[in-house]
Amino acid sequence: MVQHAACMTYGANGDFSERQGVDLASVLPLDSRRVTWLDIHGMTEPSALEPFSTSLGIHPLTLEDILNTEQRPKMEDFGDYVFIDLNMLWYDSEQGVEAQQVSFILGSRYVISFQRGDVDVFAGVRERLRSGKGRLRKMGADYLAYALVDAVVDNYFLVLEKLGEEIEDIEEALIANPGRETLRGIHHLKRELLHLRKSVWPLREAVGALDRGESALIQPGTRAYLRDVYDHTIQVIDALETYRDMVSGMLDIYLSSISNRMNEVMKVLTIISTVFIPLTFLAGVYGMNFRFMPELSWRWGYPALLGIMLTVAAVMLAFFRRKKWL
Amino acid sequence: MVQHAACMTYGANGDFSERQGVDLASVLPLDSRRVTWLDIHGMTEPSALEPFSTSLGIHPLTLEDILNTEQRPKMEDFGDYVFIDLNMLWYDSEQGVEAQQVSFILGSRYVISFQRGDVDVFAGVRERLRSGKGRLRKMGADYLAYALVDAVVDNYFLVLEKLGEEIEDIEEALIANPGRETLRGIHHLKRELLHLRKSVWPLREAVGALDRGESALIQPGTRAYLRDVYDHTIQVIDALETYRDMVSGMLDIYLSSISNRMNEVMKVLTIISTVFIPLTFLAGVYGMNFRFMPELSWRWGYPALLGIMLTVAAVMLAFFRRKKWL
Amino acid sequence: MVQHAACMTYGANGDFSERQGVDLASVLPLDSRRVTWLDIHGMTEPSALEPFSTSLGIHPLTLEDILNTEQRPKMEDFGDYVFIDLNMLWYDSEQGVEAQQVSFILGSRYVISFQRGDVDVFAGVRERLRSGKGRLRKMGADYLAYALVDAVVDNYFLVLEKLGEEIEDIEEALIANPGRETLRGIHHLKRELLHLRKSVWPLREAVGALDRGESALIQPGTRAYLRDVYDHTIQVIDALETYRDMVSGMLDIYLSSISNRMNEVMKVLTIISTVFIPLTFLAGVYGMNFRFMPELSWRWGYPALLGIMLTVAAVMLAFFRRKKWL
Amino acid sequence: MVQHAACMTYGANGDFSERQGVDLASVLPLDSRRVTWLDIHGMTEPSALEPFSTSLGIHPLTLEDILNTEQRPKMEDFGDYVFIDLNMLWYDSEQGVEAQQVSFILGSRYVISFQRGDVDVFAGVRERLRSGKGRLRKMGADYLAYALVDAVVDNYFLVLEKLGEEIEDIEEALIANPGRETLRGIHHLKRELLHLRKSVWPLREAVGALDRGESALIQPGTRAYLRDVYDHTIQVIDALETYRDMVSGMLDIYLSSISNRMNEVMKVLTIISTVFIPLTFLAGVYGMNFRFMPELSWRWGYPALLGIMLTVAAVMLAFFRRKKWL
Amino acid sequence: MVQHAACMTYGANGDFSERQGVDLASVLPLDSRRVTWLDIHGMTEPSALEPFSTSLGIHPLTLEDILNTEQRPKMEDFGDYVFIDLNMLWYDSEQGVEAQQVSFILGSRYVISFQRGDVDVFAGVRERLRSGKGRLRKMGADYLAYALVDAVVDNYFLVLEKLGEEIEDIEEALIANPGRETLRGIHHLKRELLHLRKSVWPLREAVGALDRGESALIQPGTRAYLRDVYDHTIQVIDALETYRDMVSGMLDIYLSSISNRMNEVMKVLTIISTVFIPLTFLAGVYGMNFRFMPELSWRWGYPALLGIMLTVAAVMLAFFRRKKWL
Repeated sequence: MVQHAACMTYGANGDFSERQGVDLASVLPLDSRRVTWLDIHGMTEPSALEPFSTSLGIHPLTLEDILNTEQRPKMEDFGDYVFIDLNMLWYDSEQGVEAQQVSFILGSRYVISFQRGDVDVFAGVRERLRSGKGRLRKMGADYLAYALVDAVVDNYFLVLEKLGEEIEDIEEALIANPGRETLRGIHHLKRELLHLRKSVWPLREAVGALDRGESALIQPGTRAYLRDVYDHTIQVIDALETYRDMVSGMLDIYLSSISNRMNEVMKVLTIISTVFIPLTFLAGVYGMNFRFMPELSWRWGYPALLGIMLTVAAVMLAFFRRKKWL
Repeated sequence: MVQHAACMTYGANGDFSERQGVDLASVLPLDSRRVTWLDIHGMTEPSALEPFSTSLGIHPLTLEDILNTEQRPKMEDFGDYVFIDLNMLWYDSEQGVEAQQVSFILGSRYVISFQRGDVDVFAGVRERLRSGKGRLRKMGADYLAYALVDAVVDNYFLVLEKLGEEIEDIEEALIANPGRETLRGIHHLKRELLHLRKSVWPLREAVGALDRGESALIQPGTRAYLRDVYDHTIQVIDALETYRDMVSGMLDIYLSSISNRMNEVMKVLTIISTVFIPLTFLAGVYGMNFRFMPELSWRWGYPALLGIMLTVAAVMLAFFRRKKWL
Repeated sequence: MVQHAACMTYGANGDFSERQGVDLASVLPLDSRRVTWLDIHGMTEPSALEPFSTSLGIHPLTLEDILNTEQRPKMEDFGDYVFIDLNMLWYDSEQGVEAQQVSFILGSRYVISFQRGDVDVFAGVRERLRSGKGRLRKMGADYLAYALVDAVVDNYFLVLEKLGEEIEDIEEALIANPGRETLRGIHHLKRELLHLRKSVWPLREAVGALDRGESALIQPGTRAYLRDVYDHTIQVIDALETYRDMVSGMLDIYLSSISNRMNEVMKVLTIISTVFIPLTFLAGVYGMNFRFMPELSWRWGYPALLGIMLTVAAVMLAFFRRKKWL
Repeated sequence: MVQHAACMTYGANGDFSERQGVDLASVLPLDSRRVTWLDIHGMTEPSALEPFSTSLGIHPLTLEDILNTEQRPKMEDFGDYVFIDLNMLWYDSEQGVEAQQVSFILGSRYVISFQRGDVDVFAGVRERLRSGKGRLRKMGADYLAYALVDAVVDNYFLVLEKLGEEIEDIEEALIANPGRETLRGIHHLKRELLHLRKSVWPLREAVGALDRGESALIQPGTRAYLRDVYDHTIQVIDALETYRDMVSGMLDIYLSSISNRMNEVMKVLTIISTVFIPLTFLAGVYGMNFRFMPELSWRWGYPALLGIMLTVAAVMLAFFRRKKWL
Repeated sequence: MVQHAACMTYGANGDFSERQGVDLASVLPLDSRRVTWLDIHGMTEPSALEPFSTSLGIHPLTLEDILNTEQRPKMEDFGDYVFIDLNMLWYDSEQGVEAQQVSFILGSRYVISFQRGDVDVFAGVRERLRSGKGRLRKMGADYLAYALVDAVVDNYFLVLEKLGEEIEDIEEALIANPGRETLRGIHHLKRELLHLRKSVWPLREAVGALDRGESALIQPGTRAYLRDVYDHTIQVIDALETYRDMVSGMLDIYLSSISNRMNEVMKVLTIISTVFIPLTFLAGVYGMNFRFMPELSWRWGYPALLGIMLTVAAVMLAFFRRKKWL
């Protein structure tokens, strides 16, 4: 079922019309002299798209891909139209990185976009269309498709920024007071980067294919813009790989600092035991019940022994300190 | 020996016939105006296929490959026919991931499929053929081959799902109560992913070769479908690589949590010893038999010492707590 | 010096002749209407081959390569002939994986094979030639070369099988009773896989070059067979890489199980000490010589203390058990 | 806002003029018979460049890239001009490796360079232009662009040298007295190499694209120089990768030496305890109050026991020494 | 400054002349009908080469590369000549692997070689030229260049052999008596392999470019020889990678054996303590001063307790032995 559909059309002469909550069937046939953007939210039934399938020549596999929510980002050129499937990412402060599939069909004079969830990143594009500022209304459907893809890719930078902040938080915790929470944070981050990576690499591939592709639907003037989006995806990948290296370095630091701290503890405890063991031995010696132990009856035997014990302890501690064990 | 063979034929005019338990020799010569699907189970002897070899021009090496059960997935174009060798995987709740070789010979008007074991994934294709729904009976042998390959690849997703559940189980165990069982589970999973990987990478190669291949046997309209299967194999590989990363992360968590727990135990034990050792020393001192030890004859010597001992223990514990060693 | 040379010739009309212990010079000039296989064992002197060099146009570098026993597997196309250099591997139950260089010169109507050691894998090919069964005597020199290369590559599977058995043995030892022997076994296996890998990768390259090569000496009908050998080399590599992953997993298991066992031992020992230390302290307290210690003169002081000691020990052990430290 | 702009022009006849602090608008139109170098510092507003955009046909995306300070090094050929974006690196003794973006627009007869910060590496090029020595004033704009890129890349070697010194310092500390500082130094170095790597790999790509590129703006004679710069970037990468390997080796050495030292400490402490524990036991035995202990009333019992204790201690120490535990 | 230069010329008619200590300027112009080899040692000034630069058309960048001693091995084709830059390696028994840059300029009828240091590997080539044996004097300048490159590459095998011996020494030490020296040896070896690798990979690239290159200066007959050198560089790389794997395996063995030994020591020490602690407790019990302790006045109390102590110790040791802790 389609939750909501909006239709915007604009032409070279500068006119622009927008309809919210349109019935899908009612927008056909498309006006071939104007650019039409059909923005569909919450598609769940294939039948709703069937009129498009026949009127615009959409391949059954494309319809299947649109309905299937676990697609890998990709770009497919069907000649009459180009199908683009992307993952839109955003950072939810509680859930971490969230993903939502966004699909586009770019035809000669139309773009159909399909969004699954409630998060909407096309507000900016919509506003630029309505205001008529910038070059958006002066260009064709391919430029509109670029603008939409660009909006999705730009969102990745926000996600990266948030992850960058998370990394900094964990690094501070790592210096201040590393604990189990820190370890959990590192592993959480590691997994998020893993998932991000899973959607960024094919994204790059898809955008790259769009840029290099031979599709006649994309005009030479738009290619430079696509290359720009492509550069952005590479930047995202670079940042991601750097983050991965940083996170794995953080894990190393965590493990070695935990093990260091534990070793320090054990060392101090062992030193305490080691200092007292010879003293206890001395006390044991003079606790023996031999009849003939001359020291026992000496007048200053007891204080002398206490002195000896103090000396032994002091010598041992000095030795440990000189060896830098303390 | 052939255990069972079924033969289905269908033509452009919509007629369809099916014969179960056919004798291989009896299906020859094939009707060149209809599509023939010969589905053979449990082949063990080369001689059974010899009539095909001569009538359909099958290369001796292909026959050898069909009989050899330890083949690597591959696609070979022999001009007159294309030979496809796949590993069908399924998840057995006791044995884990199991594999079975499935081979196809795709000719201009026929598909011969060879299955070794009892697991059958072609039931869906068979049903679609019998019912005549969908496009299957309207298309050629290449589309039938696509449908069979697709059925095999779709099964991989079921296997992945099961492995995903296994991973989740182990992750829960990892948080709740990691033990030797968890370690064994991780290593078991690791090995299963290794085996899966061994058959998925060449699968991708084989399907990719089919899609990109120049074979005249595959019509342009079928290529989009093959590309779709290819995308599925890439999705399988992506999931697999993510699983591998997750499993190796789980191993790290396991090892560090085990070592952490052990360290905690040793720390507590050592602290107990460390607290008692100075106390034991004090007791030893007043167990000495010096004649001149004034404290021994003091009226409150004993309770005073007990008080001192309590104080020493309390100070040490407070110190350890302040140092966060406890 | 040539230790032994055998010469077999056969022609399209089905005749076949074999001579053992031939003098190299005596086989020249080769009969251009028949296929000649010259099988040379134990070559150590370049001069013995000089007649061939001039009569068949063998390049001096090829002669050098044949005499040099530490070659990397390779395939070189010299136009008039193709030079193939392989490592034959076998598994010696005492020495492990052993290697021996085998070289081939494939000309338009002849194959010269050079074997260094005593292990001979060409017995099967020789037998098929003598019996005249199969297609061997009906095909040209290129098919003979294929049969010889195939015999060498098939031997790799035997080696893999033996290594697979070794891996299983070590895995069992790893579960039953891991010790220093197991570690040594793992490292030995690791090194053998390393050496195997060193000869398998260039083998794949060499066979691949033969298959893809443009050499006019190899007829189209033989290419399918070469592709088959190529597939075998890939299978060997796949198995090898899987073995490597398994062995490195085994090392991880070994190390973590050893460290686990050691930790268990230390834990038990430390627990024993920890239980006795407070008890020893109590005994020390009542061994003190204070004049005023009322407990000492109580009638039931001694048994009461023993009871307290038992209680303390029991409580500690119960605590350790509840904490799952025991 | 443009902080400072300098304009140098020179022609084939050897004349040369230089203006500091020019207004950007005033340099247009460029003299097409002379080479113009416009060196702009501290650009922050797009409007300042708009006259160039129209007069020289600069694409809006290029202007955006120039203003965006977090670009990845790249080279883009827009036909009429080539846009080059580099990271200039330098080593600040306090901050470590610092980066600053430097962009170039190379047209047929002009080069515009954009520098963001205060560090200036073009002093050498400027001097060579002013003095007229070398080939710089005799060549075209492409050679000027090469000279500027070369100046940036040469700076990388200075950075590498400084990092090399840092590595040597840490290595010395590693041998002399490894501590927490050393670990921090290693991780700092690791992160710096990570950042360096992030800008060097795309640098290589960009310079390589310039060298291999088909751009008509770059004359054949200049290509050899570009290849030279390209070789330099490869040398930087080689050094970088070697440094990375060295640093990861240093981390291994650090961790194993720390763990070794800790183990040594624990061993010595444990040996001290182990020697005294049997002695304390002996003292405990003769501290027992049995009425019938004949040794207690022997004349030489006490000295004999002391002798036994010394012997036990000596034997244990000798045993430990023979076992190389001490 | 040029330290020493030697000039050899030879022609097709078999004549040969050699001059030692020539002045560079005096050898120009080169006799175009004969092959000239100019062997220059210890170049430090660019001016010395200027006559060549103009007479033979050497590019300024080549002169720069010759003087720059920290070049990466490379091959550059300048049309009129090919510039080859290699690292000559040798093994110094004290310093380990040492490197020296060797450069060649190969023109149509001449080779100029530049050596920096005192180590000379061209003695063999020089001798073959003087004696006139072999094909060297019958071939052109390209074959001479091959012979010189081959001499450099052959030296790598000597270095590998020495490193192989070092590896064997360390392996023996690893089995016999691993200590800090062994660790240092492993790290030293690791670093040497790192440096070797740094010069071998570009060497392979350079020789490969020479072999595959389109340069008209290299005649078809010489290509087979270059391919041979190329094979040698691949063999060097193979050996190197194997060594790297072996060394990293050795590090694993070292670390695990050190940690094993330490664990063994700690285990034995802990067992000694653990055996004595219950005994000391027993002695402590009978050292208590309770008035009513019936055992103290038993006739056989003391020997009975000693017997109990022995039993306890024996039981504990037996238990530890059965558990394989001893």
